[in-house]
Amino acid sequence: MGAEVKSGRCILFCGRPVEEADLLGLTRQPGDLVIGADGGFFTARRLGFSPDLAIGDFDSAPMPEPEANLEVHPAHKDETDCILGVDAGLARGFTRFIILGGTGGRLDHTVANLQTLRYLCERGARGELRERDCWAQVIQDETLELRRGAYLGEGAYLSLFAMSGECRVTETGVEYPLEDYPLSGAYPLGVSNHIRDTARITAQGTLLVMLCRECMSSFSSCERRKRSKKKNGQSEQ
Amino acid sequence: MGAEVKSGRCILFCGRPVEEADLLGLTRQPGDLVIGADGGFFTARRLGFSPDLAIGDFDSAPMPEPEANLEVHPAHKDETDCILGVDAGLARGFTRFIILGGTGGRLDHTVANLQTLRYLCERGARGELRERDCWAQVIQDETLELRRGAYLGEGAYLSLFAMSGECRVTETGVEYPLEDYPLSGAYPLGVSNHIRDTARITAQGTLLVMLCRECMSSFSSCERRKRSKKKNGQSEQ
Repeated sequence: MGAEVKSGRCILFCGRPVEEADLLGLTRQPGDLVIGADGGFFTARRLGFSPDLAIGDFDSAPMPEPEANLEVHPAHKDETDCILGVDAGLARGFTRFIILGGTGGRLDHTVANLQTLRYLCERGARGELRERDCWAQVIQDETLELRRGAYLGEGAYLSLFAMSGECRVTETGVEYPLEDYPLSGAYPLGVSNHIRDTARITAQGTLLVMLCRECMSSFSSCERRKRSKKKNGQSEQ
Repeated sequence: MGAEVKSGRCILFCGRPVEEADLLGLTRQPGDLVIGADGGFFTARRLGFSPDLAIGDFDSAPMPEPEANLEVHPAHKDETDCILGVDAGLARGFTRFIILGGTGGRLDHTVANLQTLRYLCERGARGELRERDCWAQVIQDETLELRRGAYLGEGAYLSLFAMSGECRVTETGVEYPLEDYPLSGAYPLGVSNHIRDTARITAQGTLLVMLCRECMSSFSSCERRKRSKKKNGQSEQ
């Protein structure tokens, strides 16, 4: 794509509601690019992330004011809003992506966004999905270290899933270790592990790594969407 | 496994809360086998499904009374409760599985249960996951027909995802048809389609087929779990 490689992160707000707790401590740093996909533009602004770019079809959110840096796509398109957002980040030279508001709503969107993490891997980039009760990343032929308590605090479960046919996995520093194990995408063996001190996960193949905890929120994602729309000044649909 | 092939369905209640609306019209028919995994035993009973078997480690739900047909597993095990349930059904000769309460909670559990649908496919069986806003099935080298309005009523979105490396897909009877398209698990192209009359989906490879609609529930899965536990006479944890 020719763009200079950027050391900052591309922070992408998708259409689902995002509250302070979903950031898992994330703040905007110098060098970061913040993109709002569809209604995510207003969420990013409300949370103080001053979005650099608004992107999407704006079929389910109002169009930002014309002064905003806008990239409007037709509603009838092949790409999800999330893919449009990561493509915009990739084109600008970013290789680290943090995606917010990409889970917790329609399950098909969540599955699509997990596949988007894999899409990033295949382009030499790395992405993560964040929400208050879940953190997810896809790794490919590499090693990831996760210390106990990272992102979600104590008591989170660590789970690994092969994302293609098979992935050879070595997992140490956990309650149930694996040694060069052929993890299959047709058998969920790697669910609900516990990190002892620091987990070290090596994948030969494509591996979805998740930290999850029992849901803490006292209201549903539907409710959160309604509240978020209200805060953003959008009307109910 | 040697068991005679059964024509009925294995209806499996997992640990997540299930309400009437999540059944999508399902009722128990003669020949069906009903299994409750962990707390799912009480859910099945509450919804009038008279479970034939209780299975699991019962680490997060009370043990059913000793008169129940019980299969108790250690809490420290490799298998998820859902896998234990489908294994019990497979061993009894069932090839059609309907899984309830397998989505809507921790996202790692949901991903595990989507992989369980693939596990069933690889054993010559077929499974589906149901909840009020989502219906999911995995197909492998076969054709599936879905009429408009099936399971979720009008307005549901149809989405397809390659579950292994690549899956060749032909999709007709929809707004955005595909013709022998090499769908990749690293690019979510098949999201949010609409069925015109009857969708006909042919997969060469392993394909996740989902029907989803915007969430209708007015309270969260956390809330539902609390209510469900209260109804089942279980104490809060």
